[in-house]
Amino acid sequence: MDFTLRAANVDDCKDIARMIVVRLAGGHATLVPTAGQRRCFAAASDGLGPPPRVPRGDRNASGVTFQGHIYLEQDGFCKNPFFHGIIAEVPEHLKSKEGHTKIGYAIYFYSWSSSSGRGIYMEDLYVMPEFRGKGIGKALMSKVAQLGLAAGCTQLNFTVLDWNKPSLEFYFHQGCYDFTAESGYHLMRCEGEALEKLAQP
Amino acid sequence: MDFTLRAANVDDCKDIARMIVVRLAGGHATLVPTAGQRRCFAAASDGLGPPPRVPRGDRNASGVTFQGHIYLEQDGFCKNPFFHGIIAEVPEHLKSKEGHTKIGYAIYFYSWSSSSGRGIYMEDLYVMPEFRGKGIGKALMSKVAQLGLAAGCTQLNFTVLDWNKPSLEFYFHQGCYDFTAESGYHLMRCEGEALEKLAQP
Repeated sequence: MDFTLRAANVDDCKDIARMIVVRLAGGHATLVPTAGQRRCFAAASDGLGPPPRVPRGDRNASGVTFQGHIYLEQDGFCKNPFFHGIIAEVPEHLKSKEGHTKIGYAIYFYSWSSSSGRGIYMEDLYVMPEFRGKGIGKALMSKVAQLGLAAGCTQLNFTVLDWNKPSLEFYFHQGCYDFTAESGYHLMRCEGEALEKLAQP
Repeated sequence: MDFTLRAANVDDCKDIARMIVVRLAGGHATLVPTAGQRRCFAAASDGLGPPPRVPRGDRNASGVTFQGHIYLEQDGFCKNPFFHGIIAEVPEHLKSKEGHTKIGYAIYFYSWSSSSGRGIYMEDLYVMPEFRGKGIGKALMSKVAQLGLAAGCTQLNFTVLDWNKPSLEFYFHQGCYDFTAESGYHLMRCEGEALEKLAQP
C-alpha cells in the first residue's frame, strides 16, 4: 500500500489525539487538546533541568475536565520534549472512510540503563483498523529501530499486556523477547498521594 | 547521619562508575570510563533530533574492550542528556573505609505515556553497603519524586527483580505498587541482530 512515514510536528497533534482516544476507548482517558493548549513551556535555561510544572485539570467551556497531563502539544513539541512522534500518512485518494489521511503513529523517547547504555523506548504503536495488515505497523516500528540505532542505542524497549496475544505474536515475529518473563524484571510505580508523600523531605 | 544530596556533574562520573561496577558485580558489564571519554557529542542543532552515533568497542592500552555503550560522561552530560544523576555525599570525617565521600547515587530520566502523561523513570538507586539503613536511599528516592512532581510528572516508574524481596519490601513501604503484577504489562525488548534486522527498511 502507498504510505509515507515522517517525523510528527505540532500540527499532527489533533490527529494523534484522535487515534489515542480510539486506542484508549473503554479506558479512563479523555483527550481534548485545544488550540489554547498550543503553547510550549520554555524549559530550564541550561537545557538540563526539568521543564516547569504544567497546569492540571483545566476545564473547557462545557465544564468537562481535560486530562491535563495528556498535553501532546506542550509535552512533545517544546525545547526539551518528553517524547517524539512518527506519523504514517496515505495519499488523499486512499483516505479513510471518515476522510483521514494520517492513519497511524508511533511515539518514542530515549532511555538509559547502567547495564546496557542507551535505549529507545517505544511508547505507542498504532495503525487504524482499516489500514492494518499492510505493513504499516512494521514500518513504523522499523523506523523507531532505525532512529534508535542512529542514536547509538543498543535496545528497543516497550511494554505489552500479557493477554494481548496478537500483539505478542507480532512482536515475537520481529525478534523481540519478553524481558519480564525471561529476567524477572517487574515495572513498579508510585503515583498520587503516595508520590506526594514520598516527595516530602 | 550527616549527608547531602546534589545534582551530579561530570566530575562525579568516576565515582558513579565505581558504584555501578560494584552494583553490577557478578554481572556482565565492565565499566572503565577514561579521561579520553570526557567529551560531549554535540546533539542535533535543533535540539530535537537524536545525538550522533557513539563509537563502540574502544580498547584501552591493555587490549580490554570497554563497554563503550556505558559512557556515563558523554551520555549524561551533553546538550540532550540521556539521563540525569543525583549524588549522596558525606563529609570528610565520615568517609568510607576506602576513603570515599560520594557514597550513593540515583539516575533518572523523563518518560511519557499516552494514558498518563509525563513520568519520571528512576533507573538506578544505590547506596554503598556500609552506609545503608541511615535513610540515604529513601532521601535519594524522595529527591527523584520531588523532581518528577516539579516537572509535572504524575508517576515515578522503575523496575525491580521479582526475587529481590528486600528491595520490593522497601518500595512497597514507600507506597509503590507492582504495575506488572497488577496490570499484566510486560517489558519487551529487541536488541542485537534482531534490532539491526528490524531497522532494515
